[in-house]
Amino acid sequence: MKDITRICFIGWGVVGQGLTEILLEQKSELKNRYGFQFKVVAIADKVKGSVYDENGLDLAKLLKIVKETGKINDYPEGIKGWDSIKTITESNANLVVEASWTDINTGEPAISHVKAAIKCYKHVVMTNKGPIALAAKDLLKMAEKNGVQLKFEGTVLSGTPAISLGLNNLAGSKITKIMGIVNGTTNYILSEMEKGLEYETALKQAQQLGYAEADPTADVEGYDALGKVVILSNVILGANITKDQVPCKGITKITSKDIEEAKKEGKRWKLIAGVELKDDGSVEAFVKPQKIPLDHPLASVGGPINALTYTTKYLGDITIVGPGAGREATGYALLTDILDIHRSLTK
Amino acid sequence: MKDITRICFIGWGVVGQGLTEILLEQKSELKNRYGFQFKVVAIADKVKGSVYDENGLDLAKLLKIVKETGKINDYPEGIKGWDSIKTITESNANLVVEASWTDINTGEPAISHVKAAIKCYKHVVMTNKGPIALAAKDLLKMAEKNGVQLKFEGTVLSGTPAISLGLNNLAGSKITKIMGIVNGTTNYILSEMEKGLEYETALKQAQQLGYAEADPTADVEGYDALGKVVILSNVILGANITKDQVPCKGITKITSKDIEEAKKEGKRWKLIAGVELKDDGSVEAFVKPQKIPLDHPLASVGGPINALTYTTKYLGDITIVGPGAGREATGYALLTDILDIHRSLTK
Repeated sequence: MKDITRICFIGWGVVGQGLTEILLEQKSELKNRYGFQFKVVAIADKVKGSVYDENGLDLAKLLKIVKETGKINDYPEGIKGWDSIKTITESNANLVVEASWTDINTGEPAISHVKAAIKCYKHVVMTNKGPIALAAKDLLKMAEKNGVQLKFEGTVLSGTPAISLGLNNLAGSKITKIMGIVNGTTNYILSEMEKGLEYETALKQAQQLGYAEADPTADVEGYDALGKVVILSNVILGANITKDQVPCKGITKITSKDIEEAKKEGKRWKLIAGVELKDDGSVEAFVKPQKIPLDHPLASVGGPINALTYTTKYLGDITIVGPGAGREATGYALLTDILDIHRSLTK
Repeated sequence: MKDITRICFIGWGVVGQGLTEILLEQKSELKNRYGFQFKVVAIADKVKGSVYDENGLDLAKLLKIVKETGKINDYPEGIKGWDSIKTITESNANLVVEASWTDINTGEPAISHVKAAIKCYKHVVMTNKGPIALAAKDLLKMAEKNGVQLKFEGTVLSGTPAISLGLNNLAGSKITKIMGIVNGTTNYILSEMEKGLEYETALKQAQQLGYAEADPTADVEGYDALGKVVILSNVILGANITKDQVPCKGITKITSKDIEEAKKEGKRWKLIAGVELKDDGSVEAFVKPQKIPLDHPLASVGGPINALTYTTKYLGDITIVGPGAGREATGYALLTDILDIHRSLTK
């Protein structure tokens, strides 16, 4: 049995179900191509209820039931009623998919979930920005001490592998600067404004398309980008900064006149999140709208697409471009973390 | 001693010395940040001679000597006179950096070097396109059978981590298509033609800058790109094709008139190497100039820069942009492979 990963889901909303669908669809490919075999033994969701079966759940059946009734409890087999912490600590899962909601201010309950998992020597994957922006260093230290892995590719640029690019692929390249477009909502709004829309109209359109929330503050004021730049600073550049140390300006003050002026200069407004490593080892991070020259790789990144440029000593600039959100892309981010853990354990 | 990697270099020209300089410069960072400790125990170069010291060579001293006299034999200590194969098989190295010259038609002598290393259970890293374009599948199978790793990030896009992106980071994303700009020389020439130069003038300029060889055939006829698309097809998409199965057209027939016409259509000529996975599991690869719409991420990739777009089921398009050549970038490609092996062995 030691080659079979036993997974439990904490939180089973859009992202958790997105991953579940990919796992079902890819089951044989994952086994044949990557040697990855798994069963999902437990799911605990604050709203939908919970179920545990040490021999594995029938995911297709469970998805169907939850789509019909909204209740995990309607699944006929298994133990019901365990809460998140009990599911993490007492199930036979060896990997926890933390996909509960994001509280960017406290990081809870996700931080408690992660700590509980690490304490009982279970690997964790998550796409939840809150805990990572607030406590990445402590959580990673705990995980290392207990010999387990904590992965969170989806917290920045969703399934686009921006974090593993910086952490693994560019290891040893001496990264001195990271800057990018890390919020799709504001990038979409700026792209639409360039086509002639006023800010308010572009925002409404983004809301209709599901790119922006009813309360768009977190996106348009730059707070979402702020959380991501804190993660990049601490995880990739080894800094130890908090949100309140980073100057943050959103796009609400950008006018059609600003857009036109940039056009005349051969430039384009983008909401840029950036961080630079200083010679003394400290970092300087920011979130602010910037005019980017049209021949810069970030300039052509339009609509809800995200991108990140790593400036390195040995390679110059390396840019990655891809989706920054979405059910499948974020579900896939968890799979990429799971496969990364699998690869490292079986090599 | 088991945590210390013992490295031998086969071939010590621009790329090998490039890596050596990075290793020297980064020695303490590699140890402190990545837990990677190494010594270089042997270097064998067809022209410069060879040296072996089981306790490790003084790299700074050796670099200085070779810069002055061109001869590895002038290094005062160690055993001299071993050829490549003897160095691979009889030194105590456990990792071979294969950096000899590229013969894109036979793959030799590099293929023999790789086989010799794998046979005596040594890991191999290389940036040499020839062996990988010709024999990737066989060599990888041999390596897997013997429990060692063969890595070749630098064969496509040099140090830009395009191969590991497709192989590892995008594992499970269901890649259906790969296309990109994989030759810097032709991309530079096309960029200069767009500024108004004729083909011949742009080529001469590329030669003066060292971007193009005196005989530019391999670049401008697309053969270099062809080797790379064969590698991507076989390594990333699991195909088993050879160069002669891929239609290949270079840029020598592109005229200033073509460039102007594309401009009027809001497009830009790029030499594109691409491969698509068909429903029946076969692949269709090509190298040819294409007119790319200006809002496509590949369109803004100018000069000697390279880029690759992976089209995936779960993430849509993921594009990586970075250098495609250069002493440091290619030397760094070897380091990224070495660290990847180190990471997998120590996790």
